Amino acid sequence: MWITVDRPASCMKNVVTIGGGTGTYAVLTALKSFDFNLSAIVSMCDDGGSTGQLRDDYGVLPPGDIRRSLIALSPTSQSLRRLFDYRFQGGSLDGHNFGNLFLTALEKTEGGFRQAVLAVSHLLNVKGRVIPVTLSSVRLHTELENGKIITGETNIDIPKHNSRVKIKKVFIKPLAHPNQQALEAIKEANLIIIGPGDLYTSVIPNFLVRGIAKAVRSSRARKILICNLMTKNGETNGYSAVDFLEVVENYLGKNTVDYVLINSKKPGKVRLKRYSEENCQPVILPKDFKEKPDKAVILKADVLTKRGLIRHDPKKLGRQILNLV
Amino acid sequence: MWITVDRPASCMKNVVTIGGGTGTYAVLTALKSFDFNLSAIVSMCDDGGSTGQLRDDYGVLPPGDIRRSLIALSPTSQSLRRLFDYRFQGGSLDGHNFGNLFLTALEKTEGGFRQAVLAVSHLLNVKGRVIPVTLSSVRLHTELENGKIITGETNIDIPKHNSRVKIKKVFIKPLAHPNQQALEAIKEANLIIIGPGDLYTSVIPNFLVRGIAKAVRSSRARKILICNLMTKNGETNGYSAVDFLEVVENYLGKNTVDYVLINSKKPGKVRLKRYSEENCQPVILPKDFKEKPDKAVILKADVLTKRGLIRHDPKKLGRQILNLV
Repeated sequence: MWITVDRPASCMKNVVTIGGGTGTYAVLTALKSFDFNLSAIVSMCDDGGSTGQLRDDYGVLPPGDIRRSLIALSPTSQSLRRLFDYRFQGGSLDGHNFGNLFLTALEKTEGGFRQAVLAVSHLLNVKGRVIPVTLSSVRLHTELENGKIITGETNIDIPKHNSRVKIKKVFIKPLAHPNQQALEAIKEANLIIIGPGDLYTSVIPNFLVRGIAKAVRSSRARKILICNLMTKNGETNGYSAVDFLEVVENYLGKNTVDYVLINSKKPGKVRLKRYSEENCQPVILPKDFKEKPDKAVILKADVLTKRGLIRHDPKKLGRQILNLV
Repeated sequence: MWITVDRPASCMKNVVTIGGGTGTYAVLTALKSFDFNLSAIVSMCDDGGSTGQLRDDYGVLPPGDIRRSLIALSPTSQSLRRLFDYRFQGGSLDGHNFGNLFLTALEKTEGGFRQAVLAVSHLLNVKGRVIPVTLSSVRLHTELENGKIITGETNIDIPKHNSRVKIKKVFIKPLAHPNQQALEAIKEANLIIIGPGDLYTSVIPNFLVRGIAKAVRSSRARKILICNLMTKNGETNGYSAVDFLEVVENYLGKNTVDYVLINSKKPGKVRLKRYSEENCQPVILPKDFKEKPDKAVILKADVLTKRGLIRHDPKKLGRQILNLV
């Protein structure tokens, strides 16, 4: 091995994020400026695009979401981050992302995905730890309410099914063993942040790995669900914030989540138009919603970026999280 | 930019190697343990295999020979060197070398090949400088004695022509501008080492870049030609050490070379068998050869590896070079 990784100092708060995909990028960016021991647990079900091809061709674990988290937590210069995010266009490498190729080659030369992630963490001077939730090679499966089974994460993400048919449940095959690092991070956490991210394809897949849901339930950490800003076509059509919480707790266990953070700022009509065309709507709290004493506390705050894509603003998000640690 | 490169300290001897391909690997390995300011000038005509495909697909400069030289001069751990030398097998990346992909992606994100080489030099903690002889995109052409023109370095290297027809000359198109760093290194050199390496496809292409041959002629450095151990089918069939010198001086200028280092140790029959099957013979000094006072001094020494492939032994080679600085 060519790296060493320091154990976190004991005086700092241990903050764990659980997610995957672009949602995790925002929350990690929000957190990295604070003095936390940060552990980003990342789902390992991606099988589309560059990542999917590398899995199929070389039998490696999915590098895409891990790469994004590594970049989010890297204070390294723009140049190195730009390199890791660089995507080849055309030719034999078309669509491949350099960071994915890097992780793939390292998995081969270092003898494992875990070692590859550590090596890149070192190179990118990553603040905290990026932890694949499992080191087992698994595939995500979805059962729709009409009984149909969809195989592969990418086939849910880019819905090839009728998006009006709701998802009944997701499961993974084969059974996945948890990464011991993930279990330890959850056990030692002071705060566990779930999401944001695609509910069934980025967030829930973490809880499908054996032992992870139980570890979250047993952890003495405060648990906060950062609710998505928008629904996603084919995954969460028509979902309210309560639906998001309910689904998460279906997999995690009843009354596990302590707080749900919901965006209170409605995006302007112009910003919403593009999303509306893709059948995506803002996630809101139902008008008739009433908090119950034994349920999660609902936190409403403006956590929206000012312009452009509808995303969580890292600074606004950071302030809300800081209140809970 | 995310790197800085120190200028060489003025008290050390400036040693410049001129070559490309695997021959250069041996000479750089021989030199890197000495306290020299080392500059490796590398030819830029490779257009076969992974390198060729990257040139064709992405319009980049050829990374292969540069990568090999960077690895030779890197004292970095085996892990990082193994990664840079890793070759994908099968799938969409079949035959691509990770180091080549790294240089290609960096050329795109850093805005140039020179910057990419500097960035990798920094990452691999390279001792000395690896200098592409030109930053122009060129192709090697070969004129055979029967008048036929062969386009592309790879078509000479893997001879598609009748190897009994000798090479008359090589040239590059379009005209190539010299890398200023190469001219400066040659000008400031105390010792210039030419070869070993494939004569027409790795060594001579350096002298085809405008200004390079003149700079070597004008340099006050001692100039040594390290003669190849074996002839190469399709390139140097039947060549003696004198032929090698003659060809080099055809491109470089008469009486430019001060010393020619020739291997004195004959490889055993078993080692020679495989080469003989590929139509390659040991390069020897003709029996009737007589030194002339105004010509290069012939140095004969055992510089052969003990077993395996017929290669220059870095330690033995290093000792011979040390005598000349």
